[in-house]
Amino acid sequence: MIHSPNRIIINTSALQGNYKFLTSKVGQTCQTAAVVKANGYGLGVDVVIPALEQAGAKFFYVAHFAEALTVRELTSAPIAVLGGLPRGAADDYRHNRIVPVLNTAEDIAGCPADLPAIWHIDTGMNRLGLSVNEVSALASQAKSLPILMMTHFTSSDDAESSHATEQVRKFDDCIAGLPKPFQLIPQSICNSSGIFRNENWHRAQTRPGVALYGANPTPETKNPMSPVVTMETRILQIRTARAGETVGYNQTETVEKDTLLATVGLGYADGFLRSGSSRAKLYWHGQPCKIMGRVSMDLIVVDINNLKNCPSPKQGDWLEVLGNHQSADQLAIDLGTISYEVLTSLSHRAERVIRTTH
Amino acid sequence: MIHSPNRIIINTSALQGNYKFLTSKVGQTCQTAAVVKANGYGLGVDVVIPALEQAGAKFFYVAHFAEALTVRELTSAPIAVLGGLPRGAADDYRHNRIVPVLNTAEDIAGCPADLPAIWHIDTGMNRLGLSVNEVSALASQAKSLPILMMTHFTSSDDAESSHATEQVRKFDDCIAGLPKPFQLIPQSICNSSGIFRNENWHRAQTRPGVALYGANPTPETKNPMSPVVTMETRILQIRTARAGETVGYNQTETVEKDTLLATVGLGYADGFLRSGSSRAKLYWHGQPCKIMGRVSMDLIVVDINNLKNCPSPKQGDWLEVLGNHQSADQLAIDLGTISYEVLTSLSHRAERVIRTTH
Repeated sequence: MIHSPNRIIINTSALQGNYKFLTSKVGQTCQTAAVVKANGYGLGVDVVIPALEQAGAKFFYVAHFAEALTVRELTSAPIAVLGGLPRGAADDYRHNRIVPVLNTAEDIAGCPADLPAIWHIDTGMNRLGLSVNEVSALASQAKSLPILMMTHFTSSDDAESSHATEQVRKFDDCIAGLPKPFQLIPQSICNSSGIFRNENWHRAQTRPGVALYGANPTPETKNPMSPVVTMETRILQIRTARAGETVGYNQTETVEKDTLLATVGLGYADGFLRSGSSRAKLYWHGQPCKIMGRVSMDLIVVDINNLKNCPSPKQGDWLEVLGNHQSADQLAIDLGTISYEVLTSLSHRAERVIRTTH
Repeated sequence: MIHSPNRIIINTSALQGNYKFLTSKVGQTCQTAAVVKANGYGLGVDVVIPALEQAGAKFFYVAHFAEALTVRELTSAPIAVLGGLPRGAADDYRHNRIVPVLNTAEDIAGCPADLPAIWHIDTGMNRLGLSVNEVSALASQAKSLPILMMTHFTSSDDAESSHATEQVRKFDDCIAGLPKPFQLIPQSICNSSGIFRNENWHRAQTRPGVALYGANPTPETKNPMSPVVTMETRILQIRTARAGETVGYNQTETVEKDTLLATVGLGYADGFLRSGSSRAKLYWHGQPCKIMGRVSMDLIVVDINNLKNCPSPKQGDWLEVLGNHQSADQLAIDLGTISYEVLTSLSHRAERVIRTTH
């Protein structure tokens, strides 16, 4: 036994349900690829890939080639690398049947004609991707056709923004100006949120990521996805701090009256961001226990003084970090970030427990 | 080849130099233990432990039992677990020759007489440790003597704070009130900063952590430690954003004039906190390149428009994340945190390169 003070419980049935739900949103001819970068958004590709394949996933996206190599051990399906084609890497991509997403003229020049590839057109991220201005010249000189033309949304999670609509128009206009064969190539536009915004954007393939793992792709409404991750942390000590005493590093928080505190074995080295100091909460029987003082590397202290109508927590009990009472989206607010960072920061030190039923 | 867009270069000579320097600050009879929790503050215990042993380290501290098991594969030296003794874990500790740090009465009750252990007295953290009030009763009933009595500072990094002095007084008063045998047990008080504050606090053993890895234990003065970690990230694309265009997710930053941008393969899934959005910098030839827009999961865009008297960066070139021009302490300011979180968040996806010379 490793006696870990943290456990991440992954509900693979919920993950599979989310995959199937996302598939149900698109037509029969549209493929739902699965984005599994950052080790399956922190859940572990060793768990995520088999579960998604069983649910029907036949195409995976990662960020880096090294990630693709890890995923290649787990599946024979196509794996695409969003981060492009580094100089001198073409043979390694081909040998491992990895599909590069080509973002630059240099990427395209370095891609052999017999290496299947995706062209990424930038329509407003200004991050990765071929500019609309350069695509035309590159297409007319192309050694071979890409297997997919893609673009990526900036703001599809924002129901108030019209930028996604502008981006799709720019993408469509760009493609319409390319040589005829390019107009017949399958297209991929939608991330998680995009899938929910407009059916006309689904095209040949969608690329959901965070929604698979339970985060809300439509923040303006109730989350249509099922929670996949529960995280719990064990109480290492319970103590009473006396009125006037301080808690934690640099004495940043003072208790005003005698206060019952619980110390748990979770800290920023477990991916619980230090920005949650004196602000974020853990839960006990559905009741919030506010963090007192600074989140330290391996420990957090929470206030358990005002719990009502429930058993008192004891050393060895587990508090909820993520679960029924605190979603990754909700915790993210107290950490000053988004659910994506909450998930991808999840502990490499935590014990993982797999659940296969709801 | 894994073609990683991130590399962490670890200078083991500097690490060893830091260990020796910390040892030189204390007397001959004081042991310098090494804190290697959180996978050696993110550097990797597989690299850190052999280097530190070679430099003379003979005692290691980790946070969790699972970490101790990993470290046990690398050394036969004593390993102490700061996080206590979980119920039912005593046999596993003994079998692997792991020393629990006992923080609670329950920990002490669960510790067999023949399992060497450390008693931790809380003198003001209100986090882990026996309260001064309860130690006396526990000591008079103890089944066996601990091998070490320890406490932990709240504010030894703060030269203005007198709290460390108060804590040592509280610790000494507590021990003086215990049965005679307890007064003869070796003591350990100092973390990294504490070592520099008062010779009388060194006692039998110090427990430096972050200073080993190059962070400044005396923030009010020049850093006496040598940098251990360099981190670099590769440029995946260079583009010009046109005046009025936005960069990144949710269009949070607009470029005022045509601007040359570089996109690197580093993001918050690599432990570069999202809080650095539109604020933190990467470096090229010693010149800062400010992050434009949001840090995304695997990518960051920086402004490379105003570089002077240096070659222009190109796709495939490496920008400095941590190194000669940006220490972990400095980057931490732009991320709104401390060097500890910068280091322990370091990428699990990055390639590690070991350097053994200065």
